[in-house]
Amino acid sequence: VTSSSDGSPFDPVLMAAVTELGGALRGLVDASVRTTVDPAELSAVAAAARELTTRLAASTRPVTRLPALDDPVAFRRRDSPVTGVGSAIAPPVVLHRDGDGVAGTATLGLAYEGPPGFLHGGMSGLLMDQVLGAAAIAAGRWGMTVRLELDYRGPVPLDRPLVLRGRLVEDAGRKAVVTGTIALAAAPEQVLVEARGVFVAPRPDKLAAYFGEVTDASGRHRPPGRPTDATALGEGAAG
Amino acid sequence: VTSSSDGSPFDPVLMAAVTELGGALRGLVDASVRTTVDPAELSAVAAAARELTTRLAASTRPVTRLPALDDPVAFRRRDSPVTGVGSAIAPPVVLHRDGDGVAGTATLGLAYEGPPGFLHGGMSGLLMDQVLGAAAIAAGRWGMTVRLELDYRGPVPLDRPLVLRGRLVEDAGRKAVVTGTIALAAAPEQVLVEARGVFVAPRPDKLAAYFGEVTDASGRHRPPGRPTDATALGEGAAG
Repeated sequence: VTSSSDGSPFDPVLMAAVTELGGALRGLVDASVRTTVDPAELSAVAAAARELTTRLAASTRPVTRLPALDDPVAFRRRDSPVTGVGSAIAPPVVLHRDGDGVAGTATLGLAYEGPPGFLHGGMSGLLMDQVLGAAAIAAGRWGMTVRLELDYRGPVPLDRPLVLRGRLVEDAGRKAVVTGTIALAAAPEQVLVEARGVFVAPRPDKLAAYFGEVTDASGRHRPPGRPTDATALGEGAAG
Repeated sequence: VTSSSDGSPFDPVLMAAVTELGGALRGLVDASVRTTVDPAELSAVAAAARELTTRLAASTRPVTRLPALDDPVAFRRRDSPVTGVGSAIAPPVVLHRDGDGVAGTATLGLAYEGPPGFLHGGMSGLLMDQVLGAAAIAAGRWGMTVRLELDYRGPVPLDRPLVLRGRLVEDAGRKAVVTGTIALAAAPEQVLVEARGVFVAPRPDKLAAYFGEVTDASGRHRPPGRPTDATALGEGAAG
């Protein structure tokens, strides 16, 4: 049992099971967009999937209670739709510190398609928002996105390893400006998508209004909003 | 059997089964981020999910062959990560014509969370890219995203019906400029996210390079890139 940034226990057995389920569901989602089995088999698989949903729904958390293993201060969110090892929506992006910024790797398959054969343009925005936000946190500047700009230099191919980068370029108190890029890992200097994000830490009254009811898995109040040393970056694939 | 924009047959039995599976997988993904069942049960569900993956993988399409039911000219993509009824990643957004633009509705749950209780900022970008692209198509101007700008006026709550809007504001030959918004359906005039997108139709040589190998489900070459009357908008939930 290792521990989180606040010293609370971290359960590796649960993390392994969450990771296993996330991977299995990701595989199922991928198969669902590639399959050509007949309608009766699709319906039978759907019925079996509903049974699995019932099993998972046997015990659930309230929406204001973060899942076990989460550490919002360290930006570790097991079910993040971008970096979450437990999320079937997430590729997932794996982030680590890189020089004065962060770098991430991901490979996105057919489930993320926009124009045939290429990544959905909006998915590039989803990935960049996360990477830029992580770069702000890595620099001690957590904030919520207030502006995001994306320039698309070329289409991003599917099923190829990508490298994502983010770096703080301006630090003005509550406001942080971050830039980032997406490129193929095989051609990291040829930028396919360029991004610029502005993140602002909410004032205390907004923080209270937005996150006043949020607790961790044990029921303790642990809102986001505190600058962090982002120690979770690079510690496994939890993002 | 109704037909697609090119007169090819459209199989309602297959569409019903694809829609059923998409809905079932979406429910499973949602349950996976809310569950608190123990690690052994998570692993057992993962094993069962892998069996379902094997069943779907019994017959698959090549990546350059669009799935049956797709009609890229009419912008109907059953597995789109935003509008696809068959996609477990998609909320899905349901689009329809609205005045001189398009409007969409969607409700996003805990699987799309960014800051606790609110939609991931990048998800707003994903949704907007799709809605702006659909608005360009509705105006006869298909193109690929070259720039996307998002201004976040306020956090977008989870589990609340949203209304998404897009409208062409500038038409300059191959280039189209589109603006759009995200708001709560209960407060449609209070804009939470504002977006501006620039879409450019690739020149013929680029179209050939990007989509030269794409075929429809029957094996015929049917690339995107042709302006369309967007007749699929509002015809069911296929997006």
